[in-house]
Amino acid sequence: MQLQYQLLLFTLLLAASDALVQDFCVADLSLPAGPAGYPCKKSVTENDFVFSGLAASGNTSNIISAAVTPAFDGQFPGVNGLGISIARLDLAPGGVIPLHTHPGGSEILVVIEGTICAGFISSFGNTPYLKTLNKGDIMVFPVGLLHFQFNSGKGPALAFVSFSTQNPGLQITDFALFKNDFPTELVAKTTFLDVAQIKKLKGVLGGTN
Amino acid sequence: MQLQYQLLLFTLLLAASDALVQDFCVADLSLPAGPAGYPCKKSVTENDFVFSGLAASGNTSNIISAAVTPAFDGQFPGVNGLGISIARLDLAPGGVIPLHTHPGGSEILVVIEGTICAGFISSFGNTPYLKTLNKGDIMVFPVGLLHFQFNSGKGPALAFVSFSTQNPGLQITDFALFKNDFPTELVAKTTFLDVAQIKKLKGVLGGTN
Amino acid sequence: MQLQYQLLLFTLLLAASDALVQDFCVADLSLPAGPAGYPCKKSVTENDFVFSGLAASGNTSNIISAAVTPAFDGQFPGVNGLGISIARLDLAPGGVIPLHTHPGGSEILVVIEGTICAGFISSFGNTPYLKTLNKGDIMVFPVGLLHFQFNSGKGPALAFVSFSTQNPGLQITDFALFKNDFPTELVAKTTFLDVAQIKKLKGVLGGTN
Amino acid sequence: MQLQYQLLLFTLLLAASDALVQDFCVADLSLPAGPAGYPCKKSVTENDFVFSGLAASGNTSNIISAAVTPAFDGQFPGVNGLGISIARLDLAPGGVIPLHTHPGGSEILVVIEGTICAGFISSFGNTPYLKTLNKGDIMVFPVGLLHFQFNSGKGPALAFVSFSTQNPGLQITDFALFKNDFPTELVAKTTFLDVAQIKKLKGVLGGTN
Amino acid sequence: MQLQYQLLLFTLLLAASDALVQDFCVADLSLPAGPAGYPCKKSVTENDFVFSGLAASGNTSNIISAAVTPAFDGQFPGVNGLGISIARLDLAPGGVIPLHTHPGGSEILVVIEGTICAGFISSFGNTPYLKTLNKGDIMVFPVGLLHFQFNSGKGPALAFVSFSTQNPGLQITDFALFKNDFPTELVAKTTFLDVAQIKKLKGVLGGTN
Amino acid sequence: MQLQYQLLLFTLLLAASDALVQDFCVADLSLPAGPAGYPCKKSVTENDFVFSGLAASGNTSNIISAAVTPAFDGQFPGVNGLGISIARLDLAPGGVIPLHTHPGGSEILVVIEGTICAGFISSFGNTPYLKTLNKGDIMVFPVGLLHFQFNSGKGPALAFVSFSTQNPGLQITDFALFKNDFPTELVAKTTFLDVAQIKKLKGVLGGTN
Repeated sequence: MQLQYQLLLFTLLLAASDALVQDFCVADLSLPAGPAGYPCKKSVTENDFVFSGLAASGNTSNIISAAVTPAFDGQFPGVNGLGISIARLDLAPGGVIPLHTHPGGSEILVVIEGTICAGFISSFGNTPYLKTLNKGDIMVFPVGLLHFQFNSGKGPALAFVSFSTQNPGLQITDFALFKNDFPTELVAKTTFLDVAQIKKLKGVLGGTN
Repeated sequence: MQLQYQLLLFTLLLAASDALVQDFCVADLSLPAGPAGYPCKKSVTENDFVFSGLAASGNTSNIISAAVTPAFDGQFPGVNGLGISIARLDLAPGGVIPLHTHPGGSEILVVIEGTICAGFISSFGNTPYLKTLNKGDIMVFPVGLLHFQFNSGKGPALAFVSFSTQNPGLQITDFALFKNDFPTELVAKTTFLDVAQIKKLKGVLGGTN
Repeated sequence: MQLQYQLLLFTLLLAASDALVQDFCVADLSLPAGPAGYPCKKSVTENDFVFSGLAASGNTSNIISAAVTPAFDGQFPGVNGLGISIARLDLAPGGVIPLHTHPGGSEILVVIEGTICAGFISSFGNTPYLKTLNKGDIMVFPVGLLHFQFNSGKGPALAFVSFSTQNPGLQITDFALFKNDFPTELVAKTTFLDVAQIKKLKGVLGGTN
Repeated sequence: MQLQYQLLLFTLLLAASDALVQDFCVADLSLPAGPAGYPCKKSVTENDFVFSGLAASGNTSNIISAAVTPAFDGQFPGVNGLGISIARLDLAPGGVIPLHTHPGGSEILVVIEGTICAGFISSFGNTPYLKTLNKGDIMVFPVGLLHFQFNSGKGPALAFVSFSTQNPGLQITDFALFKNDFPTELVAKTTFLDVAQIKKLKGVLGGTN
Repeated sequence: MQLQYQLLLFTLLLAASDALVQDFCVADLSLPAGPAGYPCKKSVTENDFVFSGLAASGNTSNIISAAVTPAFDGQFPGVNGLGISIARLDLAPGGVIPLHTHPGGSEILVVIEGTICAGFISSFGNTPYLKTLNKGDIMVFPVGLLHFQFNSGKGPALAFVSFSTQNPGLQITDFALFKNDFPTELVAKTTFLDVAQIKKLKGVLGGTN
Repeated sequence: MQLQYQLLLFTLLLAASDALVQDFCVADLSLPAGPAGYPCKKSVTENDFVFSGLAASGNTSNIISAAVTPAFDGQFPGVNGLGISIARLDLAPGGVIPLHTHPGGSEILVVIEGTICAGFISSFGNTPYLKTLNKGDIMVFPVGLLHFQFNSGKGPALAFVSFSTQNPGLQITDFALFKNDFPTELVAKTTFLDVAQIKKLKGVLGGTN
């Protein structure tokens, strides 16, 4: 009977061989990406589907007392083409992830440790949706809307955030306005912020012009 | 021979009748929308595919000396399900469309009259991409990124902006921060703006808290 | 100047009002779903975007010493239309999530506590990709492929699993074969399992025929 | 041990129940469709996934000596939301499916009986791709391009055509031009056909104006 | 305090660097495209997002007294991957864009100058939807359906047409039938047009066979 | 007049030339695929859209008395990017296609000859949907669900199966469990099958460990 099975295997696999290469598409980061992601690596192992880069705390010794550690396609090529990615959020006491958007995808946050105040603002009516989240709570942030998280507890806070895309992008409003050479005059004109305020934050964040 | 054609029509159309209802799906705004848009109207005419609401100039007698007039699914139900929409931009001399994002889609702007300075900021490296556009020039703004337009000429400016979705949304950063009851303390904490600056703009835009 | 801003707001919002209703689409579970998800609720609050149902451990007092607690669209209507969802995995010592697929989406698992052995099998070459994961490790499981997780440590294990869809589905192979009235004869014919084996597992899982 | 399994089932299914309703979405044709298809039927049986309407030959006693019998969402609600549909083509000797497009999807044709000459025309360079197909041959027609099939053999021909959507639409060029009240003057203006030719075909197909 | 911000930037950007490369994907036209578009250029400037090729009138000194000037991915690589493109329509008095389809996307037209009569034909019931459009009017043409535009006024007409894709394609029915080597016999067989009519138009358009 | 038409062609085609390359995207299998499929071949002929590999019966002289012959992107590069593919099923008397899933797409089966018993199992409630299909009957199998087909008649059976993707994948449960080096201990742990049963089938299918 084994022989017959062998024949079966031969028949089925010979016919199907080329057809089955796309169960997954681990990114070959050495080739240029396209709109749908990176070309697929030819040869993969189990290590392409596992990532340990989120196991250690991010360094929160900075002014926001916070760190974002991503596992997007650039860090974790196994997610290429799969429509999902994840990141780690470390928030020391007082830590904050400033207002930002992810242009490319929606986000779910799950609190692992501590207490996090989070919120987003809808474009319709400019309504803020704010909530204090405890361990085990989850919150969803719809694609492209301004949102933030900060540690509202006394100890450190830890969360994981998942995204509906392999690379959601991250646009921190303050960085977009003040940490570049976007001319102060144009920032003022398009935000109505005072020039002094703009110059102050450009100074802090290293922006010019 | 006509009879034979009639038979053909009878045969073909009888078989195909129910299958062909989805050339388009004009929105029935009286029913609740879903993630892909509104349910389809049962009966349509040519008027469902035409809209004259962009023919007149928007009223620019306001502080930004500008007006946005949309033809999204809510105003122009014919675009429902078709992945496209359009809006009209009127910019009086000095007019500006403040920094904003469209969470749902990319945008192409075409200048019809006047001179417009436009720009967007990428999330990677916070690079501003700025350009002065003259009549007939077009510019594309990738989905979800902060961008702006202002009249950099002496006379009025007119542009049409198209979107890669039936409803791109519109989140004006200033409105999201200052034109609502988003607490001043939280705005300060998540943007590093000074409290005085926040209160000033909340005063102007009608925000509270 | 406030007056002028008020005029601006009036102008902009009047024009844009209907267009901006789709920042999100919280599921109205009382209406029938369609292929893209549920119709949107008319009125939402911050509570629609937050879920506490994953905060408590699942009950692992069962034969697999494991529990899956989902936050899919049915439990967490805020994810409707956003292409993402999440679930909690509790694995007591010895606990196992038997071989299963998610027909609708890819999965990322992050280990919060304990040690988990996980794996999936590709359809091309029937290659198993197996790995032991420690706290903070992540693993991605491509859409539709057979995979499993079990607690390979000494204490309890906890993980969160995110999905690239609002409702990934869950097809446990054993349940599909043995926990229903799928005739034993057909199970044998289509799996080559021995009838005695099938009857034994049908007995355990409550299957008939 | 059975008891423990029962507990498992209870635990798992209680948690997962609402989450798993979307393995499929059989169309409820009594409700209005949306851009993604019809709302899902609440209760289904195996008969919702099977269709016998393609088993019998279509009636080819008509001027084109051909018949198209569709199994699109309107006829076969089981395909709703699944991105696939099928139709049967019967071509008596001399039979022809006139030039047409499917606005919504690509097509694969497989010849079951007889000999069929088929072709499509690309929009780039207006290149015709023509081929005579025998039993068992397949041909693919890219979405939206003009194509045709006719019986180039001596006996009857039978084919099945599959589509990459639940409802591809069907626009037969001759019907669009001549079998309606599209004014002869406009047909002439937009096609450069002679008025006499237009009137002749309008007469045959039952068009007016 | 600046030092602390610098630390923040270092931390955040180091972690996120590779993750943020896909705000956009300007086409590298020197590499082969795939189904989702072209691979992304490595280095971009603001000029990649701006195009002046639509600023000048198209040359309407031809038999249709009309010109279409596209800004699709091939001309305007900045739209690659963004699901949108645009073109300019110039119609001299009497000018006409003959019946055509865009296999790949839906279209919105906005009239900038003059009066344009436009229409499309649905596949269901072969219903024509016709309308005369004045300056500022918009009309939407659902994907894949036959449509046309002609100048119905006395002076020149100008319009911009936007598409729901980076490359909608353009299949002009007359060109597909008569401006190639598609054999006259096959044109006749699949359109029911008279051979004399076909030969006449092939003569005019340069077709053979 | 011909001259004028020539001018038209020149004008239109010059403007549009680069824009129209993506009516289709025949796979260049020599280049690495990406998540959306293979890069497009530069030069194509009508033979790229036709495939004769399904014309001959598959070899059913094997233990399952069955053969699957695919025309996926690997065998039939013309389907690349078009969201559709097809395969041929040959079932000798007694033949069976064992329980399997297609991770990537839904399937429609049409019976060409003989009698086929087919079924799938939903993940919700583990409900089997079983049906005996005769010549001309069709059945749809929703994406990712376990399903099977076997010849329930006396003579040979033939079917064609179409898929909603260019490469649906094929995961045969028995092969995933027993035809590889997936350790027996892990198979037992994650399926509850007896070790003896596993070893027996591993022996038959050539698995190890």
